[in-house]
Amino acid sequence: MREKKEKATLKLFALNSNQKLAEKIATELETQLCEASVKHFSDGEIQININESVRGDDVFVIQSISEPVNENFMELMIMVDALRRSSAGTINIVLPYYGYARADRKARPREPITAKLIANFIQLAGADRVITMDLHAGQLQGFFNIPVDHLLAIFVQAEYFRRKGITNDVVIVAPDHNGVKAARNLATLLKAPIAIVDKRDETRAADMTVIGDVSGRRCIVFDDLIDTGGKLSDAAVALKNAGATEVYACATHPILSGRAVEELENSYYKEVVVTDTIDVPEEKQFDKLKVLSVSKTFAKAIDLIFSNQSVDSLFNKKYTI
Amino acid sequence: MREKKEKATLKLFALNSNQKLAEKIATELETQLCEASVKHFSDGEIQININESVRGDDVFVIQSISEPVNENFMELMIMVDALRRSSAGTINIVLPYYGYARADRKARPREPITAKLIANFIQLAGADRVITMDLHAGQLQGFFNIPVDHLLAIFVQAEYFRRKGITNDVVIVAPDHNGVKAARNLATLLKAPIAIVDKRDETRAADMTVIGDVSGRRCIVFDDLIDTGGKLSDAAVALKNAGATEVYACATHPILSGRAVEELENSYYKEVVVTDTIDVPEEKQFDKLKVLSVSKTFAKAIDLIFSNQSVDSLFNKKYTI
Amino acid sequence: MREKKEKATLKLFALNSNQKLAEKIATELETQLCEASVKHFSDGEIQININESVRGDDVFVIQSISEPVNENFMELMIMVDALRRSSAGTINIVLPYYGYARADRKARPREPITAKLIANFIQLAGADRVITMDLHAGQLQGFFNIPVDHLLAIFVQAEYFRRKGITNDVVIVAPDHNGVKAARNLATLLKAPIAIVDKRDETRAADMTVIGDVSGRRCIVFDDLIDTGGKLSDAAVALKNAGATEVYACATHPILSGRAVEELENSYYKEVVVTDTIDVPEEKQFDKLKVLSVSKTFAKAIDLIFSNQSVDSLFNKKYTI
Amino acid sequence: MREKKEKATLKLFALNSNQKLAEKIATELETQLCEASVKHFSDGEIQININESVRGDDVFVIQSISEPVNENFMELMIMVDALRRSSAGTINIVLPYYGYARADRKARPREPITAKLIANFIQLAGADRVITMDLHAGQLQGFFNIPVDHLLAIFVQAEYFRRKGITNDVVIVAPDHNGVKAARNLATLLKAPIAIVDKRDETRAADMTVIGDVSGRRCIVFDDLIDTGGKLSDAAVALKNAGATEVYACATHPILSGRAVEELENSYYKEVVVTDTIDVPEEKQFDKLKVLSVSKTFAKAIDLIFSNQSVDSLFNKKYTI
Amino acid sequence: MREKKEKATLKLFALNSNQKLAEKIATELETQLCEASVKHFSDGEIQININESVRGDDVFVIQSISEPVNENFMELMIMVDALRRSSAGTINIVLPYYGYARADRKARPREPITAKLIANFIQLAGADRVITMDLHAGQLQGFFNIPVDHLLAIFVQAEYFRRKGITNDVVIVAPDHNGVKAARNLATLLKAPIAIVDKRDETRAADMTVIGDVSGRRCIVFDDLIDTGGKLSDAAVALKNAGATEVYACATHPILSGRAVEELENSYYKEVVVTDTIDVPEEKQFDKLKVLSVSKTFAKAIDLIFSNQSVDSLFNKKYTI
Amino acid sequence: MREKKEKATLKLFALNSNQKLAEKIATELETQLCEASVKHFSDGEIQININESVRGDDVFVIQSISEPVNENFMELMIMVDALRRSSAGTINIVLPYYGYARADRKARPREPITAKLIANFIQLAGADRVITMDLHAGQLQGFFNIPVDHLLAIFVQAEYFRRKGITNDVVIVAPDHNGVKAARNLATLLKAPIAIVDKRDETRAADMTVIGDVSGRRCIVFDDLIDTGGKLSDAAVALKNAGATEVYACATHPILSGRAVEELENSYYKEVVVTDTIDVPEEKQFDKLKVLSVSKTFAKAIDLIFSNQSVDSLFNKKYTI
Repeated sequence: MREKKEKATLKLFALNSNQKLAEKIATELETQLCEASVKHFSDGEIQININESVRGDDVFVIQSISEPVNENFMELMIMVDALRRSSAGTINIVLPYYGYARADRKARPREPITAKLIANFIQLAGADRVITMDLHAGQLQGFFNIPVDHLLAIFVQAEYFRRKGITNDVVIVAPDHNGVKAARNLATLLKAPIAIVDKRDETRAADMTVIGDVSGRRCIVFDDLIDTGGKLSDAAVALKNAGATEVYACATHPILSGRAVEELENSYYKEVVVTDTIDVPEEKQFDKLKVLSVSKTFAKAIDLIFSNQSVDSLFNKKYTI
Repeated sequence: MREKKEKATLKLFALNSNQKLAEKIATELETQLCEASVKHFSDGEIQININESVRGDDVFVIQSISEPVNENFMELMIMVDALRRSSAGTINIVLPYYGYARADRKARPREPITAKLIANFIQLAGADRVITMDLHAGQLQGFFNIPVDHLLAIFVQAEYFRRKGITNDVVIVAPDHNGVKAARNLATLLKAPIAIVDKRDETRAADMTVIGDVSGRRCIVFDDLIDTGGKLSDAAVALKNAGATEVYACATHPILSGRAVEELENSYYKEVVVTDTIDVPEEKQFDKLKVLSVSKTFAKAIDLIFSNQSVDSLFNKKYTI
Repeated sequence: MREKKEKATLKLFALNSNQKLAEKIATELETQLCEASVKHFSDGEIQININESVRGDDVFVIQSISEPVNENFMELMIMVDALRRSSAGTINIVLPYYGYARADRKARPREPITAKLIANFIQLAGADRVITMDLHAGQLQGFFNIPVDHLLAIFVQAEYFRRKGITNDVVIVAPDHNGVKAARNLATLLKAPIAIVDKRDETRAADMTVIGDVSGRRCIVFDDLIDTGGKLSDAAVALKNAGATEVYACATHPILSGRAVEELENSYYKEVVVTDTIDVPEEKQFDKLKVLSVSKTFAKAIDLIFSNQSVDSLFNKKYTI
Repeated sequence: MREKKEKATLKLFALNSNQKLAEKIATELETQLCEASVKHFSDGEIQININESVRGDDVFVIQSISEPVNENFMELMIMVDALRRSSAGTINIVLPYYGYARADRKARPREPITAKLIANFIQLAGADRVITMDLHAGQLQGFFNIPVDHLLAIFVQAEYFRRKGITNDVVIVAPDHNGVKAARNLATLLKAPIAIVDKRDETRAADMTVIGDVSGRRCIVFDDLIDTGGKLSDAAVALKNAGATEVYACATHPILSGRAVEELENSYYKEVVVTDTIDVPEEKQFDKLKVLSVSKTFAKAIDLIFSNQSVDSLFNKKYTI
Repeated sequence: MREKKEKATLKLFALNSNQKLAEKIATELETQLCEASVKHFSDGEIQININESVRGDDVFVIQSISEPVNENFMELMIMVDALRRSSAGTINIVLPYYGYARADRKARPREPITAKLIANFIQLAGADRVITMDLHAGQLQGFFNIPVDHLLAIFVQAEYFRRKGITNDVVIVAPDHNGVKAARNLATLLKAPIAIVDKRDETRAADMTVIGDVSGRRCIVFDDLIDTGGKLSDAAVALKNAGATEVYACATHPILSGRAVEELENSYYKEVVVTDTIDVPEEKQFDKLKVLSVSKTFAKAIDLIFSNQSVDSLFNKKYTI
Repeated sequence: MREKKEKATLKLFALNSNQKLAEKIATELETQLCEASVKHFSDGEIQININESVRGDDVFVIQSISEPVNENFMELMIMVDALRRSSAGTINIVLPYYGYARADRKARPREPITAKLIANFIQLAGADRVITMDLHAGQLQGFFNIPVDHLLAIFVQAEYFRRKGITNDVVIVAPDHNGVKAARNLATLLKAPIAIVDKRDETRAADMTVIGDVSGRRCIVFDDLIDTGGKLSDAAVALKNAGATEVYACATHPILSGRAVEELENSYYKEVVVTDTIDVPEEKQFDKLKVLSVSKTFAKAIDLIFSNQSVDSLFNKKYTI
C-alpha cells in the first residue's frame, strides 16, 4: 500500500504592505520568504501567482491591513483564496496591524461594524488561524471562530524605556478614556503611576484637563496607534500646561496619516516611539521617531505554532528581552 | 387566486428569568404576554409548549441570562427552537441582561470566549435580532451578524440623580480602568468632572489610589453591573479616604451574587441605584437599594422595531424622562 | 527547511458530571486525565481553564448530559470552545449519556426538538466527533453531520445475567410500545422470548395488560433509561398480576429522578441493573441497585479511534466478556 | 414614494411522481396547478422550465420521493434551485412519501444515513418548509432545521374501517417490533387490543410467533409502508396459524416493489388498504387493493400554512371525517 | 392587537463609482437617491453613514466594481454590512460592471478565482440579490446561490447601429476566440454575418489572421469590455489588412485603462461605442468615443423586481427601443 | 503517552458508472480497488456498504455522472456520506465526466443552474477535493470553494493524431461558436489553422456556413462531448459542402445518447475519437469509434495529490506521451 511521503513544511509568504518586517521575521526563523508574484493591473485589479507548491504545507502569510487599506486587504484575501485552491495544509494569517479595528461597534444608528466584516471575510476566504498584535480592543478575538493569537508589543516597549533609563519619576498617561487599562499595564511594568487626559468635548482641545498628578514629572503618553496625531498633540499640550517636564509618546502602530508627521515634529514630544507593525516610508520618518522591531515576537510565535507548542512563553517578560 | 389574509401581529413572550419586567413592558405596550408553559422536569430537562399560533408573527421573547445563568440561557434557546419550528415570522430576542458578557476575550492562554459562544448559539438557534442593554463592551455587537439594538440605561439613571438634586458638586467615579469612558458619559449628562479608582494589584484593596479630585465632594461610582460588590466596596473605602463627603453607587445590572448584599449594606454608600434588567428577589433587597425601571425603554424599542421605524429616538434624552 | 516535530498525542479530559467513570476509562487506557479547572462563579457563570497545551492533539472530553442537565451541557460547550480556540487537533466528545434525547420530535404543535438543538450546538461549538451509548433512538445519529460512534451496553448487560444464571425460563419484557425492538435484541442474546406491557391510557396503571406469556416465569424488564421509575414500577405490578415469579429491571442510564429510588426500593423488583453512564450519588444508591461499568467499552472505543482503527470489534460479543 | 403592489399568492406545482394526487389537492383548494415543464433528455439529464412568474409568491411543490427514487428526488432538487433563483417568496416542499426514510441511522459500520443526506440537500437547495406524511420514524423531523409539518393518515384509515364496520372483535397487529407504537395508536382509535408478530430470525418465516391473543378474531396488520410485501405476507401466515379468522393489511405508502403485487394477491389478506401518497400505476393495481385518498389532508394543510394559521386542527379527528 | 403599519418602500442608494448613472436611474424611476455619506479617512479606511431609516425597506445599492476596484468593492461591502445591521428588508446589489469577472477560473496552477471570492463576499455580507450586466461569462451567475438578474446591453447597442444605418454590408467581428457567441448574437439582431480575429500567439499582433470574409465590408468589432485597448487595436489592424472598409468598436464596459485612450484615438476605428456602466471621466473622453446609456434598462429591472414582476420583458427587444 | 500509529494510506473506490476506467487507474497506481457493495433495491433506493476501514485514510472515489445520470450522482453522494461518517481522512471525488455541466447559467428566465446545485451538494456531502476532466466551461471550477484539479485530455488527443500522421494539411474545426477557444488549443498543439461552423438558426441545418478555409483539406471537428451527435453530423455536412476532403470527430466525453450511434455511423466522419471518461457499452460501440484511455492522466494526478505534490507536471506535454 502506498503511504504519504512528506511531513508539512513551513512556508512563509509576504505580500506588499510590509516586506521589511517580513524579511526580518524570515531571518529570525532562519528561512526565506517563498515566492509569489502580486501584480496590480492597469485596470486596478490584483493578480497573484504562487510560484511554488504549497500542497499540505503550513503556510503563513504576512500582511498588515495598513494604507492603502483596501488594496492590502484584498491582496490578502485573494492570496488566501489562491492558497486554499492550491491545497495548502493550513493557512495562517499574520496581521501585524489589523486595519478597521476601530470600527468595532455601532456607535451611531446605521453604522457598519467593519472590523467584523473583515473577520468574516478572513474566515470565509479560508484562513485557519490569525496571528495579530495589540488589537484596538481585545474583544476582536471574539469576532472570529478560528483561533486568534494575540501578541503584545508592551514587553518590547517597556524594555526600551528601561534601557533608556526613563523609569524614575515617570507617569504613564492615557490620552483618552478608553486607554486607561493599557496605561495601567505599562505603568505596572515600569512601576509608575498613571494619569488621564480628560476631554469633555472631543472637538475642542481647550476643554482638556489632566486627571492625576504630572506636575514636575516625565510623562509617557501611551496608545495603541497613532493616526493623524491630533489626539497625541493635544495630550502633549495638556500635559505641558499641567506642569510635565518632558513628554514621550509610545504606540504600537504608526499609521501616521494626514498631517501626523508635521504635528508630531512640531509637538512638545521629545521622542515618538513606535514599532514596525506598519512600515513607515522614508518620507514619513522624522528625527523624533524611534521604531522598535517586533520581528522577534512574531518569529517566535510562528515557530511555536508551526511546531504545535503553546505560545504562552511569549507572554513571559523574559522572552522579549 | 387565493391571497394571504393576515398581517403579522406582535407576540410578546416572557420566560422565567424576569417576569416582572416583562409584565411592565407588556403594560407599556398595552398588550398582554402570550402564553407558553416552561416546565423543568425532575430530571433537570426543560420542556416548553407554546400555547398559541405564532405562524408568520413578529415574536419578541424576553429573558435575561441571569442566575441561574445556564438554565435561563437554555430556556431561551429551546424557546427559539420551538418558535422557529412553529414558523414564527421573525424571532426577536430581548436580553435585558446578557450573561457571560465579561468572557469576551482570551485573557489567558486556552480560555474560551463564552460571550461569543452565546452569540453563535443565539444565531444558530434561529434568532433574527437581539435587543439588549448596556453590554459590558460595545464590541459584543460585533459578535453577531444579525442586527443588535443596544439600548442604554444612562438617560434613566441621569434623570434619577437630576430629580434627586444630586448634580452640584458631584464627581462621577470609574471604579476601575475599563470604566472611564462610561463615567465620562454620565459626567457629561450631569455636567460633572470625573475621577478614577486606580488599583495596582487587583487582589489588595490597600493599594488603591484615587486619581482626580474628590475631596469634599459627593461621588457617584458608576459601573455596568454589580456582581459580588467587592469592587464597589473597595471604591467606597478609597473615596472616603480621599475625602469624599457622600458616595452613591450606580449600575445597570444588579447581579448581587455571593456576599454582595451584606457588603453593600455595610458599605459607605448612601444609596445603591440599579435597574430592573435583572430581577432582584425579595431576600436580596435592602434599604439602600433603589431599583429604576427600564421597561419604558424596552417597550418603546419593541414598538419601533415592530412598526419598522428607527430606534434613534431612544437615544434622545427627551424620551427617557 | 523546518519540519513539524510532533505527532498528535491523546489528551483525555473529564468535566464534572461523571469523574468516576472518566477515571476508570483513563485507568483502562493506562493514561491520566489531563488537568482543566472548571469553576462555577457565585453569579452562576462557568469558567474553564485548560492547564496544559493541546495544540495539534487528539482531545477526548468525557461528560454526561445528566443532572444538572443544563449546567453540564454548558460546561461541555464552553470546554469545546476553549479547546477549539486552543488549536486542538481533533475534539472528540464522549457522552456516556445524551440528555434531552427524548425530545427528538414534535409530538405536539409548537414543541421544540431539543435533542437536535443539542446536536447543532455540539457541532457549532467545534466538535469533530461524538462517542455515545444507547441513544433513546438510533435516529439521533442522523441529527449530526459529523461521525457518531454509537456504543451499546447490551453485551455487558447480557453477560451479567448469563453469569448470574438468569437465562432459563426467562422472558424479556418491553415496558412500553417503543421498546420492543430493544427487548428483542436482549432476548436474542439470552435466547429468551419477549413480552410487552400494553398501556391504553398512559396516565392510569390499572389499564395495563401484558401481551405475551409470562406466567410462572422470571422477567427482565428492559429499557434504555430509568427516569422517575414510574414506568418500571407499573410494569412490575402488571407482570406480578400476570403471574411472573421474579422480576428484574435492566437499563443503561440511571437518571433516578424524583421519587425513583423510593418507587424502585418498594417495588416487586428483585434487582435493578444499570450502568455507570450516569454517576449515581451515594444518597441515591439502594440495596437492589446493581451498577455495571461500561468503562472498558468506552476505553476500547477511544483507543481504536485514536489509532484510526475501526470500532467494529466493539460490536463483537467476544470483546465485552 | 413607490410602494409594493402585490401580496404573495399561492402557487401550486406538481412534478412527475404523483400528478393524480396533486390534481386532487388542487381541486380541493379550488385552484389549478401552475405550469412547469420537466424534460428528461436522452442523456438522462433533467431540465425544468417554470412557465410563469413566482417572484415573491408562496410556492408549494408536490413530489413523492418514490420510484424512480433518485430521478424523482433530483427533479425536486432542480425545481427548488430554479424557484430560488426565480425569487420565489417561500418554497414549501410537499412530500407525500419521503423516500430513503428507512436509512435513518447507522445500523452497521460504515453505512450512510441517507435520510439525513436527503434532508441536508433539501435545505441546501433552498426549501423553507417541508410538509410530509407518516415518516418512518418521527425523529426525521429533527433531521431538519426548517419547520416540518408531519401529517397523519391514521384518521382517514380509522374512518375507513369504522365505515366498513370492522371495529368489533378486531385486533390491531404490528408486523414487527418497531411498529408496536403505531399499532397502539390505531387500536386506540378503534378501541381494539393489539398483538405483535415476533420474528427471531429476520430471514426465516417459520420462526415467527404471535404475541397477544388473535384466535377467533379479525386482524388488521398495520404498517407505515408496503415495500416488497414479504413482511406482510409472513404476518398473514403467522396470524392464520394463530387462529385469526380474517386478516386485513393497512399501510400509508404503497411502494409495492419487486413481487409485492403477486405476494399480496395470493396472501390470506382479505383487503390491502393503502393511500395515494404514492401513485399506484394501473399494472400494479389488484382486486384486494383499496386506495384511500389523503388529498383533503394535504389540501387543508396547505391552506392553513398559506394563510398563516396553525395546522393543529388537522390532528383533530373531526376534520378527517 | 398591534399591527404593522407600513409596506416596504423602495430605497435607492449610490456609492462613489458611478453617481451619474445612478442619478439617471433615479430619474427614470421618478425617485431620488437616498442619502448616505461615504468618507475615506486619511488613513485609507472607509466610513459609511446612512442618513435615513431603511428598516424593512427594499434597498437597491448601485456600485460598479471599477477602478479603483478594491476601494469600490470594499465601499460596497461596508455599505451592505451597514444595511444588514440597520434591518433593511431586502438588500439588492446593482453592479453595472462586475470587476474581477475575468478571474473566473484557474488558468494556471495556484491561481485564485477572484470572481468567486467576490461572489462569496457579496453573499456573506448579506446581499439578497444581484443585478448586473453583460458578465464576462454567463457562468458567473452560478457563482452565486442568491438570484442574479443578468441584463444585456445588446438591444441598446443594436438599436444604436440600426439608427445610424450601419446594417447593410456589415460584418460582426469577434476579436478573439472566446467572443464568437456574443458576435453571433449581435449579428443575428443586425442580420449580419460574422468573422473572427484568430491570433496564434497572444503576444504578437503580426501573427493574426481574420477568419471569415470582411473584404470590402464595414466591420463592428464586438466585445464585452475595453481594458487597455490592445486587443481592439490589433483587431483593427488585422481587419484593415483583410480589406475592411470601415471599422467600429462596440463594447459594454469602458474600463479604458493604461494607454487605452491613446491607442483607440490613433486606431483605424471610426467610432468606439460603449455604455455608461463604468463612468468615463472627462480626461478619458475622446472624439471617437460614443457612450450609450443603459439607465433605462436598469431602472426598468429595479422597478419590476421591486413590484415582484418578472424581468422577462427586459429581454424583449421592444422594451429597449 | 500514547501516540498515533499509522500514516494515512491511499484507498481507491469505484462506483458503478465506469468500473473499467477505475480498474485501469488502479493498475497504473499498482494498487487494487477497495471493496464497497452498492445495491439498488427493488424500490429504487441505493444502499452502500464499505467493506474495509477508512479511518484517517485518503480516499479517492471514481464515478462519472453519466447515464443514468441521477442514479450515478446519488450513488456518489451516498458514498460520500458513508465515508464522512466512517471518519475518512480526506474524501477526494474523481469525476471523469461531470454531468449537468451544460446547465451552468440561466439562459432563460426561471431556469435552474443545475451544475451549481451539483457542486453545492458535493461540497455539503463532505468532499474535500474534486478531480475532473475537460469541464464544459472552465468557470465550473469557481462553482466550488474546495480545490478542483481540472485535467485535460488534449495531450492524449493531440498525440493520437500525431501518431496517426494527421498533422499536415489539417484544419481544426469548432462545431459551434462556444468551442473556438478549444479548437485553437488543439490547433496550436498540431500547428494547424482553425475554422468554425456558423449556424444562424440552431434548429435548421441548412442555414450553416463554414467560416475559415477548409476546401481541399482534412478536418478534425473538436468538441468537449458528443451527446446526440446532431451537432457533429451537421458539422460534417457543412464541411463536406465546403470542400473538406476527410472529416474526423474528436471529443472527450462519449455520451452517445439517443440516435447518436446511428447518426455518426452514417455520417461523413472517417473516425470518431473519444476517451474512456464515460464507459461506452458494447451495444454502442461501432466501427468508426476509437476510444483513447485517460487512465494514465488520472492515475498520475491521484498519485501526485496523495503524496502532496503539485499537479503542474500533468500540464506538461511530455508526460502524456
